[in-house]
Amino acid sequence: MHPSAFARLPRPPYYAVIFSAQRTDVDDGYGETAARMVELAAQQPGFLGVESTRGEDGFGITVAYWESEEAILAWRQHAEHAAARERGRAEWYRHFELRIAKVERAYGWDRDQSRGGGAV
Amino acid sequence: MHPSAFARLPRPPYYAVIFSAQRTDVDDGYGETAARMVELAAQQPGFLGVESTRGEDGFGITVAYWESEEAILAWRQHAEHAAARERGRAEWYRHFELRIAKVERAYGWDRDQSRGGGAV
Repeated sequence: MHPSAFARLPRPPYYAVIFSAQRTDVDDGYGETAARMVELAAQQPGFLGVESTRGEDGFGITVAYWESEEAILAWRQHAEHAAARERGRAEWYRHFELRIAKVERAYGWDRDQSRGGGAV
Repeated sequence: MHPSAFARLPRPPYYAVIFSAQRTDVDDGYGETAARMVELAAQQPGFLGVESTRGEDGFGITVAYWESEEAILAWRQHAEHAAARERGRAEWYRHFELRIAKVERAYGWDRDQSRGGGAV
């Protein structure tokens, strides 16, 4: 099993953009824009994958993975992404933290695969 | 506003352990153990903070922040943490991905602080 919620990534090194955010109560356009940003990001050079979740309290974490810092910068400068960030500040977020990190090691585990007796 | 869901971190560089996981339907002891692990991690040398959330679909992301790779390794070798990881594989998780990353840049934004006219 490799649920679609998980990003399928190459071996490190690569980069992670860790975005943690507390939402406001304003939903107007949020879901559509968030989905559009994932769709658009996936079309950019150097995009590797994204994982995202949000609890009932409105606190969410999204981690987007990129090949390089140059790819992250180019996505940051994408006009439609910049416009979405503006709406995020104006309407959708109370507080957010953004951290750019270089992934050095990675490790995965799957219940079904581990049943076969493989070492984990 | 700086909701408690957010980690208050020093300036980079520091390290992030990004843990994304799909839960099973087994709840037995999960909540207590997860809370205990946060409490215990916070007592370890080099622990900086943690952010965590999970959606209704059981997919969650936890990011723990540490001063150094040595601190991460020491926490990994903590006996009670190792036992909790064993239960995680045996009972609580269907699939997980663990990524160790060095945070190089960070940036935060807050609605209330930005109202004062400060540049963001």
